[in-house]
Amino acid sequence: MSILSYFFGEKKKTANVARERLQIILAHERAGRDAPDYLPQLQKELIDVISKYVAINADDIKVQLEKKDDFEVLEVNIVLPEPARR
Amino acid sequence: MSILSYFFGEKKKTANVARERLQIILAHERAGRDAPDYLPQLQKELIDVISKYVAINADDIKVQLEKKDDFEVLEVNIVLPEPARR
Repeated sequence: MSILSYFFGEKKKTANVARERLQIILAHERAGRDAPDYLPQLQKELIDVISKYVAINADDIKVQLEKKDDFEVLEVNIVLPEPARR
Repeated sequence: MSILSYFFGEKKKTANVARERLQIILAHERAGRDAPDYLPQLQKELIDVISKYVAINADDIKVQLEKKDDFEVLEVNIVLPEPARR
């Protein structure tokens, strides 16, 4: 399965709501050694970078961090504001 | 299916090779309107940010961009260098 089909599966469920969305997923596999856990700090900087390209409201950002063994997945979901057409 | 299970499925295939890996996925849904395509520029800046946290060799970065309709997925795979224990 390609990563694109994963997101297309997700898309179908929410196809009725036509909003611009940006999803960032950071997956970190630490290979069993004592690597530092920098994902939370990294996340803040990534959002700062994205803010340079699109206007983001802090309220529209949803962050989820999942951990299992040496594997860590940070998921950031951003619903972008409506364009200025209203 | 959670995004974590997607990555765990991937992990099993390559479990023999114990390397530290970082995967970034940027999924952009444009909601049918004429939004600018900023993912390639964004990708460069994201890699710059990550370089502040971990040493990355340019050769170890693999980038893949998939597009379909108004949906665009940028996948960046980074194999991190071995630690200084050898």
